[in-house]
Amino acid sequence: MDMEEVIKSLWIRNDKKILLIVMDGIGGLPVVDGKTELEAAHTPNLDELAFRSVLGFSHPVGRGITPGSGPGHLGIFGYDPLKYEIGRGILEALGVGVDVNDKDVAVRGNFATIKGGKIVDRRAGRIPTEENKKICAYLSEKIKEIDGIEIFIYPGEEHRFVLILRGDGLYDEVEDADPQETGLPPKPARATDPRSELTARIANKFIEKVTELLKDRHPANTVLLRGFARHPHLPSMEELYGLRALGVADYPMYRGLAKLVGMDVPYIEHGLDNEIKLFKEMWGKYDFVYFHLKKTDSYGEDGNFQKKISLIEEFDSKLPEILSVKPDVVAITGDHSTPSLLKAHSWHPVPVLLYSPYIRPDTTTRFTESEAAKGGLGHLCAKEILPLLLANALRLKKFGA
Amino acid sequence: MDMEEVIKSLWIRNDKKILLIVMDGIGGLPVVDGKTELEAAHTPNLDELAFRSVLGFSHPVGRGITPGSGPGHLGIFGYDPLKYEIGRGILEALGVGVDVNDKDVAVRGNFATIKGGKIVDRRAGRIPTEENKKICAYLSEKIKEIDGIEIFIYPGEEHRFVLILRGDGLYDEVEDADPQETGLPPKPARATDPRSELTARIANKFIEKVTELLKDRHPANTVLLRGFARHPHLPSMEELYGLRALGVADYPMYRGLAKLVGMDVPYIEHGLDNEIKLFKEMWGKYDFVYFHLKKTDSYGEDGNFQKKISLIEEFDSKLPEILSVKPDVVAITGDHSTPSLLKAHSWHPVPVLLYSPYIRPDTTTRFTESEAAKGGLGHLCAKEILPLLLANALRLKKFGA
Repeated sequence: MDMEEVIKSLWIRNDKKILLIVMDGIGGLPVVDGKTELEAAHTPNLDELAFRSVLGFSHPVGRGITPGSGPGHLGIFGYDPLKYEIGRGILEALGVGVDVNDKDVAVRGNFATIKGGKIVDRRAGRIPTEENKKICAYLSEKIKEIDGIEIFIYPGEEHRFVLILRGDGLYDEVEDADPQETGLPPKPARATDPRSELTARIANKFIEKVTELLKDRHPANTVLLRGFARHPHLPSMEELYGLRALGVADYPMYRGLAKLVGMDVPYIEHGLDNEIKLFKEMWGKYDFVYFHLKKTDSYGEDGNFQKKISLIEEFDSKLPEILSVKPDVVAITGDHSTPSLLKAHSWHPVPVLLYSPYIRPDTTTRFTESEAAKGGLGHLCAKEILPLLLANALRLKKFGA
Repeated sequence: MDMEEVIKSLWIRNDKKILLIVMDGIGGLPVVDGKTELEAAHTPNLDELAFRSVLGFSHPVGRGITPGSGPGHLGIFGYDPLKYEIGRGILEALGVGVDVNDKDVAVRGNFATIKGGKIVDRRAGRIPTEENKKICAYLSEKIKEIDGIEIFIYPGEEHRFVLILRGDGLYDEVEDADPQETGLPPKPARATDPRSELTARIANKFIEKVTELLKDRHPANTVLLRGFARHPHLPSMEELYGLRALGVADYPMYRGLAKLVGMDVPYIEHGLDNEIKLFKEMWGKYDFVYFHLKKTDSYGEDGNFQKKISLIEEFDSKLPEILSVKPDVVAITGDHSTPSLLKAHSWHPVPVLLYSPYIRPDTTTRFTESEAAKGGLGHLCAKEILPLLLANALRLKKFGA
């Protein structure tokens, strides 16, 4: 029995409610006066909660491993990120806000330039996003299906788009249709497993049709296709944990990730206030809420130490309103660290705070990296957090007699 | 995907350099004034480094497991010691400084006494090492090959020797040719798998030839053979981590272990000064250096608390010279604990210190067991150290998107 099977065999339902707040990329490194973003921020409400809570460090995937958003979120949703993989095409689709269905294969596309039978620019001169949108609208109008497989085309930023193939019998063992270098002829999609030959054939017909339709549209006169990925078919949180789960997220990637594990994820416009409004409206209907705060990661990636601090302080000021729904169990953590110092996701463990009536409080008085290092939870894997939340909600039976 | 595959899929090359210092058996237990060897030693340079570093505890194999040098080192080289095994014969061969080749089977030998068809002394009265050397030289002269398999014989201490069989088709599923008790007839080598029958046959012919050649050499007039072991064929550190690795070690066992994972390991005479000289000469040519200090373990095994302290202090005095090469990432740890109190390897976790520009400093101010217990790294498995070193050298890409 692995831990996932154990948890699945132990959960029960009750009326206890769990709130999991994910401050994206929250973990930092010291920049000013030896302080991280969390340490430098003024956070009276988080401090007060930390005082009543137990803290520790969450390792998203493993020591030294820097996770992308996919594995980072799978871990905090309780899914082993080494067991479940979310393909590149699927993540790209989630990122542009496309709903991915069970039978879909999602593909990352680039508009590119072909001349004299050779790819001369893999990004078509990074065409403006507006131009991209027009081309995608035109292609969507012209190509609705190929050999019975439905075709959907969604614009991304600049030269990027997402292609969704929808129909029976589609698999994703298909090599990239991308020569990777300029000066080479186009490379057709090639199945590496016989069951994926349909996908490769449709992809190649798609490239052919597009290249014909765009032949006078220099520089975006062909496409490259990469990262063929099927819907990952994850078991739902309802199935694994008995939780009716709500996702509160204002960015498409995270709404998409939450949908992949079976959460209801209503659409909202960007902004913490919109998230709080939705959260307060819907809280009563769910056992579990995932509440996502995106911009801590964005400011970390920008290397903007001060803005990351300001956002933490803004969130802190609204924490009492969030907690006014009186959750039985609260956890605050991140899907990974994004230190402003590194301007990127990093491998550093992420502070995790756990509050319930049944924790053993520790000596921690702030939600910071240095306090987490002293916390009573010690170091844990991200995927261990969810079982701990269930336990604190008294939603897990005894294991064995 | 397991963690080894993950790391292998993520490494990149850059110009960052990593230094891993292994103080053999460094972990201790309190003996005088409640202090361990590291706590009692005066170590201003280690203290200063610890202040700038993050500390934790490394568990070589698992809680409660006392590792031998083989598993202890595999762990700190990043290899799961439960997945990779180094057979007894191979370790014995490395210990006497024999280069083990890809196709070799290595065997531990005892000179023994046979009388009236029965083994009457399994150690031939522990003959002097000098006598052993003479016998090995004589046998090496007389037996150079058996049925096309090359034979190499190397003396060890007292009655011990190492036998290397070299040639095609040798496997190591062979039971010990050793009755284990005196008063019993010799036990022939027996293959437990058909593919190892060649090895068993050669071994038995070897025993027969030796017994004939030594028949007038009482007490060393026959041999027992144990621990048949093939070259373990470990993937190299270059393959797993993209590291051109140098081993700096003045004892044969550790040079051998480093060679097994593909390090270059130039021969040097015993002594820390010789190690430092080699290290400084070769540092520029490698991505990763393993620097081994043997005697902390030896004094621990002798139960010599004071000498272990003195050696720690000597090492401390030379640390600035070692660090003068300015490594980007430094780790100091041990392959296991060897408390003077126990006069043996032990199961206690080993302090580990990590320095890089990207660590979160903790409150630790000394490289000691009591400080390690408070360190920001917490408790980790030895095999997790290497991925952490790669991450701190910015040599690992992001996992997933």
